[in-house]
Amino acid sequence: MTLAQPPVLSDLAQALCGALVLLVPLAGAGLALMNSGLGRSRSAAHAMLAPVCVMAVAVLVYGVCGWSWQSFPGRPAHSFELAGKSWNWIAAEPFFLRGLAYDGSPAALAAWLQMFSVALAAMIPLGAGSERWRLGASCASAALLAGWTYPLFAHWVWGGGWLAQLGLLDAGGSGAVQAVGGLTALSIAWILGPRQGKYDADGMPAAFPGHNAVLVLFACFLTWLGWIGLNGAGSLLLNGGGAASLPRVAIDTTLSAAAGVLSSAALTRIRFGRPDASLCANGWTGGLVASSAACAWIAPAAAAAIGAIAGVLVTFSVEWLDTRWRVDDPAGSISVHAAGGLWGLLALAIFAPVPRENPWLGQLAGVATLVVFVLPMTYGLNWLLNRFYPQRVAADGEPHGLDLYELGAGAYPEFVTRRDDFRPR
Amino acid sequence: MTLAQPPVLSDLAQALCGALVLLVPLAGAGLALMNSGLGRSRSAAHAMLAPVCVMAVAVLVYGVCGWSWQSFPGRPAHSFELAGKSWNWIAAEPFFLRGLAYDGSPAALAAWLQMFSVALAAMIPLGAGSERWRLGASCASAALLAGWTYPLFAHWVWGGGWLAQLGLLDAGGSGAVQAVGGLTALSIAWILGPRQGKYDADGMPAAFPGHNAVLVLFACFLTWLGWIGLNGAGSLLLNGGGAASLPRVAIDTTLSAAAGVLSSAALTRIRFGRPDASLCANGWTGGLVASSAACAWIAPAAAAAIGAIAGVLVTFSVEWLDTRWRVDDPAGSISVHAAGGLWGLLALAIFAPVPRENPWLGQLAGVATLVVFVLPMTYGLNWLLNRFYPQRVAADGEPHGLDLYELGAGAYPEFVTRRDDFRPR
Amino acid sequence: MTLAQPPVLSDLAQALCGALVLLVPLAGAGLALMNSGLGRSRSAAHAMLAPVCVMAVAVLVYGVCGWSWQSFPGRPAHSFELAGKSWNWIAAEPFFLRGLAYDGSPAALAAWLQMFSVALAAMIPLGAGSERWRLGASCASAALLAGWTYPLFAHWVWGGGWLAQLGLLDAGGSGAVQAVGGLTALSIAWILGPRQGKYDADGMPAAFPGHNAVLVLFACFLTWLGWIGLNGAGSLLLNGGGAASLPRVAIDTTLSAAAGVLSSAALTRIRFGRPDASLCANGWTGGLVASSAACAWIAPAAAAAIGAIAGVLVTFSVEWLDTRWRVDDPAGSISVHAAGGLWGLLALAIFAPVPRENPWLGQLAGVATLVVFVLPMTYGLNWLLNRFYPQRVAADGEPHGLDLYELGAGAYPEFVTRRDDFRPR
Repeated sequence: MTLAQPPVLSDLAQALCGALVLLVPLAGAGLALMNSGLGRSRSAAHAMLAPVCVMAVAVLVYGVCGWSWQSFPGRPAHSFELAGKSWNWIAAEPFFLRGLAYDGSPAALAAWLQMFSVALAAMIPLGAGSERWRLGASCASAALLAGWTYPLFAHWVWGGGWLAQLGLLDAGGSGAVQAVGGLTALSIAWILGPRQGKYDADGMPAAFPGHNAVLVLFACFLTWLGWIGLNGAGSLLLNGGGAASLPRVAIDTTLSAAAGVLSSAALTRIRFGRPDASLCANGWTGGLVASSAACAWIAPAAAAAIGAIAGVLVTFSVEWLDTRWRVDDPAGSISVHAAGGLWGLLALAIFAPVPRENPWLGQLAGVATLVVFVLPMTYGLNWLLNRFYPQRVAADGEPHGLDLYELGAGAYPEFVTRRDDFRPR
Repeated sequence: MTLAQPPVLSDLAQALCGALVLLVPLAGAGLALMNSGLGRSRSAAHAMLAPVCVMAVAVLVYGVCGWSWQSFPGRPAHSFELAGKSWNWIAAEPFFLRGLAYDGSPAALAAWLQMFSVALAAMIPLGAGSERWRLGASCASAALLAGWTYPLFAHWVWGGGWLAQLGLLDAGGSGAVQAVGGLTALSIAWILGPRQGKYDADGMPAAFPGHNAVLVLFACFLTWLGWIGLNGAGSLLLNGGGAASLPRVAIDTTLSAAAGVLSSAALTRIRFGRPDASLCANGWTGGLVASSAACAWIAPAAAAAIGAIAGVLVTFSVEWLDTRWRVDDPAGSISVHAAGGLWGLLALAIFAPVPRENPWLGQLAGVATLVVFVLPMTYGLNWLLNRFYPQRVAADGEPHGLDLYELGAGAYPEFVTRRDDFRPR
Repeated sequence: MTLAQPPVLSDLAQALCGALVLLVPLAGAGLALMNSGLGRSRSAAHAMLAPVCVMAVAVLVYGVCGWSWQSFPGRPAHSFELAGKSWNWIAAEPFFLRGLAYDGSPAALAAWLQMFSVALAAMIPLGAGSERWRLGASCASAALLAGWTYPLFAHWVWGGGWLAQLGLLDAGGSGAVQAVGGLTALSIAWILGPRQGKYDADGMPAAFPGHNAVLVLFACFLTWLGWIGLNGAGSLLLNGGGAASLPRVAIDTTLSAAAGVLSSAALTRIRFGRPDASLCANGWTGGLVASSAACAWIAPAAAAAIGAIAGVLVTFSVEWLDTRWRVDDPAGSISVHAAGGLWGLLALAIFAPVPRENPWLGQLAGVATLVVFVLPMTYGLNWLLNRFYPQRVAADGEPHGLDLYELGAGAYPEFVTRRDDFRPR
């Protein structure tokens, strides 16, 4: 199932692939609305302009050089020798997408899908850096992700690289898209530090409620579609799943999200007496994220189990980051995409009935690589960037909100808002 | 055209089917935004969280047992003998979707489409129960709909059941999706009773204007796409329409919605001096709902006529429910989905040039079954549920809005709102 | 590549075509949100109801007679003789779409695509007439556009007409959809005149900030998808592009939009010290508009260049219209769709490596026809309409906003807004 050679796609699979890739931008639209709605109104326009600019930077940089390092199975790549075996570690495509032939070969479809996926991955850190990350710096950080971090790891998983050779499976990108984005979100939250007023002198967190729950929950519908796009296209194009497997992918993705939102709702109701709307949105998205790796191979009931566990995991992760580890992640991006994504990779080893020699080897190698290699690398790159180009807005600008400070105009100039929304939890 | 055996789908039809099913969630997104926007801001987050949770419950329950009762033509089912003929009344699939093979057979596509359709049907009653229906109860009610009511009736129409044997045609679900949801909405409105303050001592209704007309009208675009998905996929997969008929379905669906909104606009302008934005949204959706049954077979001009009549019907129905029958349906769900759906079933008999022995028999049987069997059944199930698990929020919680009372947080914590929006009409 | 005969579409191309046309309404949804968000809250519901009504009128009128004049290559048409050659100038289809056969022939797909495209074109002038254009008049104007102006020019470009015979290429409608809509927007802005208070006695413009930047920027995601639909379907169906070219179209469209938003952001930052969120949205859409003509044939780097230039052009155009030429275009429709569209037509001659005798002839003929024929015609038709049916709301109604004046209810009845938002720039 791991591809050493490009798949041969039937016409039906190509048509479905096209239709699925077309949905991927809706995942980005959903994340953007969630990030904006979960932040405060004073930074709401910034929280929507940033994803547009970040995805613009990401697709351009990916077009310039990102695809060159990632590429597709069966195309030119560099390898090294270890333990008597040749390990493929980076692709060698020409820059500017000049190597693509638009002749119906799957490589062009893959480049298109990956361009949209990298735009999504680049948006994930915005949720963690919300209300304090400079627009210019977030664009520069997106360039690093889209130009290097993402394509390198994605080559290892989907480009015929060494993780694929070890047997890692990741149908829709729990690891290659979500965890890469989520671990970058963690790095950004560490580098930026918490928002002003988030923690008092004793380290007690204040709750900054999101300014628009309607947009946050509406976004659940968009992420649903976007993830079916990601998971379906990934399954067909990057994993050799046939067209007949699409209903399975769509049903599994849906059931995982459904179980995620319900387990978040039940858990927050048990613990706080009432379901929490923003954690429900996180549970929903966490279910989607966790479904990505395994959705092409598992039974519907297994998908529901993966999603239910993801909902619990995300809910606790949000709370612990906020109160124990004092990592300020306004939109829950780290919990949803990093925790959810790593869980998705492992869940495949538990639930997928794939007849393989050692189903755990590839998955564990993937998780380990993400944690001990990708996280330090993405942290290091963003730390370096921060040296040369400070990523956080000036301290005196933050209280005004990023809209006024960075864009010179608020998102809602006519609406009367109150600013005393700091409530200790 | 009524299927006793599963259709044989060309690759083209399968690919289009996939693309169309992918649009169906947008219909749900549209209904959610309409319900939230047509309610008051104090319950806006609840009105968005409820559809997410309800669709989660619906897809899970449908996956557990709903599909087992519904299934697809040509698969195991139970029949009874009457008048010397064998009548198919319920399917006999294994639970947990275990009977599905992902081998390109249309049954898997149908299960996927129906899982998304049942999620939509389960959202319809939320519009009628808005601002007073408990979240937990709406989820329990959705389980009844998705686990029993919907699959039973849908089996009769689309699973080779007795209504199909009588000749009922319903391409996209005017009856099987919309009227089933709309009649459940009516039951819920009856069981819950009107919102506090809706009717004064003399039974005069107060107008509670929706809090966000922009979202309501934006939703028209989403329902447009979602309905093309429903109608197109239903036509291909459940009615044996060939791929070549898709442009007809899409054009007819569009013209019906267009005529619906314009007839609502003209009618409200004639009667009240000005077009009413929320009734226009209802007219639009009513046109979509009414188009569903016949869209696969009629001429464009007939589709426009069906939609124009639906717009008039929905407009009067909203008014009469509100002022004459004192049924409080904040989002117009009963008028749009029940009235519009029943009209759609009948409209097929009037307009469709289908060469059949008795074009009215099946359609009238379908309408009669919905009114004299499905309505009492769905009312009874929800009445029983209400016995064990009261569906309405506590009287002292309602004035605060469902957001604060059930979720503990408002949808728009920073925006200053006024609460004196009760205006006698 | 210019079609004299209808293309023969593979099954794969037909399936992709269907999936792509299904996205086109999202372009309309995006424009509607942009127009509403860039206007003031007092007209926000009107700004959303108008596009719904306008597209309803457009699709109905197009179904009645528009398609009859436009049609498709290889179908009945009228010609005149000039310079010893026969020039095709108008189609001769029966009214009410009666000539369409739903047999898989591309004409039915083209009618469907064009019905959605004309709905989009008819929405474009709404952005220029925002906050002062009567709803009824905008519907009447849409009928003129959809019933005559659009189909006539589109026949010349895509129906085998004389511009196609001269070699004009326009894959997705930079000219035939966008510039036609944009030049009509210019006519409307001229006929209506600026909003009250927009220019003081010295002709200095006041800035009326849009009321909701979140919706404006969210709309960028929707237009992205909608344009891939327009460009992809146009490429396949109206230009004989094979299915294999879809990744190219999607990548080029995306890179053009990305470069457009970044060049707008950079330019506004250089000139005003800060990126301007609404101009960024205009730059994004301008990049999409400019990509439409050439996206099927150019290299990714060329697409980025076209978009970057479009972003600059749109930014200056918005400023010059506002301050130099005193044309009040609240949503930037003229700049985005007329300037962006004309630039797109020319850009094809510069960048497309199409082996043709005279690559400039067709493109210049198209631009010239738009400016010296279509603009006067659409101005004249709307001027005539204005004679019989005044297009501007009454002067005493405008300060209240179109929501209260034309619809009798505000978009946000519960939210407290301030009305002192007139700031001199």
